[in-house]
Amino acid sequence: MTSRMRAEIGEQPDALRRTIDALLPRTPDIGALARETRQVLFIARGSSDNAAVYGRYLVESRAGRLSTLAAPSIATTYRRRLDLSGVLAVAISQSGKTEEIVETLAWAKDCGARTVAITNGAGSPLAEAAEVALITLAGDEVAVPATKTYTTQLAALSVLGVGLGADVAADDLRRVPDEVAGMIERTEGSAPLAEIVEALAKVPGAVVSGRGIAFGTALELALKMKEACYLHAMGLSYADLQHGPIAVVDGQTPALLVAAGSGPTLAGTVALARRIESAGAHAYGIGGGDDLAAASTAALPGPALPEWVAPLGLIVPGQLLVENLARRLGIDPDVPRGLNKVTQTH
Amino acid sequence: MTSRMRAEIGEQPDALRRTIDALLPRTPDIGALARETRQVLFIARGSSDNAAVYGRYLVESRAGRLSTLAAPSIATTYRRRLDLSGVLAVAISQSGKTEEIVETLAWAKDCGARTVAITNGAGSPLAEAAEVALITLAGDEVAVPATKTYTTQLAALSVLGVGLGADVAADDLRRVPDEVAGMIERTEGSAPLAEIVEALAKVPGAVVSGRGIAFGTALELALKMKEACYLHAMGLSYADLQHGPIAVVDGQTPALLVAAGSGPTLAGTVALARRIESAGAHAYGIGGGDDLAAASTAALPGPALPEWVAPLGLIVPGQLLVENLARRLGIDPDVPRGLNKVTQTH
Repeated sequence: MTSRMRAEIGEQPDALRRTIDALLPRTPDIGALARETRQVLFIARGSSDNAAVYGRYLVESRAGRLSTLAAPSIATTYRRRLDLSGVLAVAISQSGKTEEIVETLAWAKDCGARTVAITNGAGSPLAEAAEVALITLAGDEVAVPATKTYTTQLAALSVLGVGLGADVAADDLRRVPDEVAGMIERTEGSAPLAEIVEALAKVPGAVVSGRGIAFGTALELALKMKEACYLHAMGLSYADLQHGPIAVVDGQTPALLVAAGSGPTLAGTVALARRIESAGAHAYGIGGGDDLAAASTAALPGPALPEWVAPLGLIVPGQLLVENLARRLGIDPDVPRGLNKVTQTH
Repeated sequence: MTSRMRAEIGEQPDALRRTIDALLPRTPDIGALARETRQVLFIARGSSDNAAVYGRYLVESRAGRLSTLAAPSIATTYRRRLDLSGVLAVAISQSGKTEEIVETLAWAKDCGARTVAITNGAGSPLAEAAEVALITLAGDEVAVPATKTYTTQLAALSVLGVGLGADVAADDLRRVPDEVAGMIERTEGSAPLAEIVEALAKVPGAVVSGRGIAFGTALELALKMKEACYLHAMGLSYADLQHGPIAVVDGQTPALLVAAGSGPTLAGTVALARRIESAGAHAYGIGGGDDLAAASTAALPGPALPEWVAPLGLIVPGQLLVENLARRLGIDPDVPRGLNKVTQTH
């Protein structure tokens, strides 16, 4: 039986094409709004927060603007005003209805920030509250684990980066939908996918790591494994993994390492895979090209895309891994326990 | 046999007293430096990064300044300049020798930031590089898991908050050393400590959560459990736990919930404990007063301190938990596998 999650993974090429076509022409609006700001503050939770981590690295590494993540509780629980003049606040929410995020964006505006919303909810409270709304065109998403709403958020963030003057070729984005389609075809039913699913089905937990532009992908994969596979998945940055919790990686706790096929963080990720393997534990690669595959027990190929847009494809093998692993474990990936689609933080 | 880690936990009251006495008179220096800035950017890794999370919430919630965490790889791997004028960069490193942190602080200065160092390494490269160096007086720390260097970092961050004009009573800090001494005495050998150690010795993993001012404590406790007990400890914010990974909490995966005994996040943490218990899983409290204890399977008392300085005591029952759990599992807490004392990220 095919899950709804699997179907939605397959809808990503079309969803991405629609979203990129609709949003790329909006870069002048973003540029005009950003002209009066010097830095970006992302407001998000859950999968959207992981998307924001991509946005943060993209904006800093390619557009040269300080870019950080907000702590919504300062607005909603501590109810403290900050001086946010010169700040471009970018709120991200799939539904556009999560009260905490809507409230925090309103707070940011009240504190002097200019405002952008990224949401799949056209006409939602979040879209209405922002000066510029970047509406993703993922269509309805029924499975609880976000897939096409997450990757279309990444597409919107790529467009945001272009609007902020990132030193990238915007046309790279046009290659993403076909590349995602090809990756789904190459990964589904492949031998390394089956091998990694079997390995993860036998362990209670795993470490998931990535660096820089790929760090958000690692966090998102860890979140999905917790949500849909009940695996003790620990998302850690490359540096933090070196700073201590490498102790937790052992024969029963493999590491999944995510990397773009190029860029300045690749060499370190390959070295980390070698270090883990030489310590007698298993490293599994996602992306990272031939070098990461050679250093790992098994690896899923990543997208043939430049580093700055690689995360739009890099999560796709991870999605297929999660969907297959959930079913292997007897879990319905569409409705994991304890989760609702529209999340509210009280 | 008593571990070196246990001895160093016991040295915290004196280390805190020395550090607070030395640093509280420095608030005018901090205020003078900060006058030319509008926001704070913390630069840290590992335990120091968890200390920075406390500093971030303290500065935002009580001093009303935007405060965020830097991504060191932007400086050291992507080598991208950002405009950091108006930014107070605060680098935190136990040794003051971690190259990545020293390099990132130099980058921040070069990008226009004013600079503060918080380190236990007087005369270290980090202390020398900063305009204001807040030297913690923890003395030598031999055990790999940081204890007294971490809590004295928190003390330095409390002083930073006071220097930035936080609306707090600075004298609260003077109560911390005696309170920590009392907590060690009350916790060590207590029935709830033994109960929680036994419970955690039987499971592969746990979720550790806290909100706002207590979030950094939860992350630090999760890090220590990974480092010294090889437990699959997943540090999650309260909101993120509601947004999905609550699915991972089950009969085999308890939650440790950390909270100050007062403040606006307490009610939500108590409600989360009730929700976890009513789902058939175990919640264990650290701090949070009688309400969190009543909602939990077992609880370790927290410090009788106002919320803003509570984290200086809140981690202490967690340290004792980690030290006891490591020994219960046959691990030498002083030298967990794969770890060095001075960490370098390459």
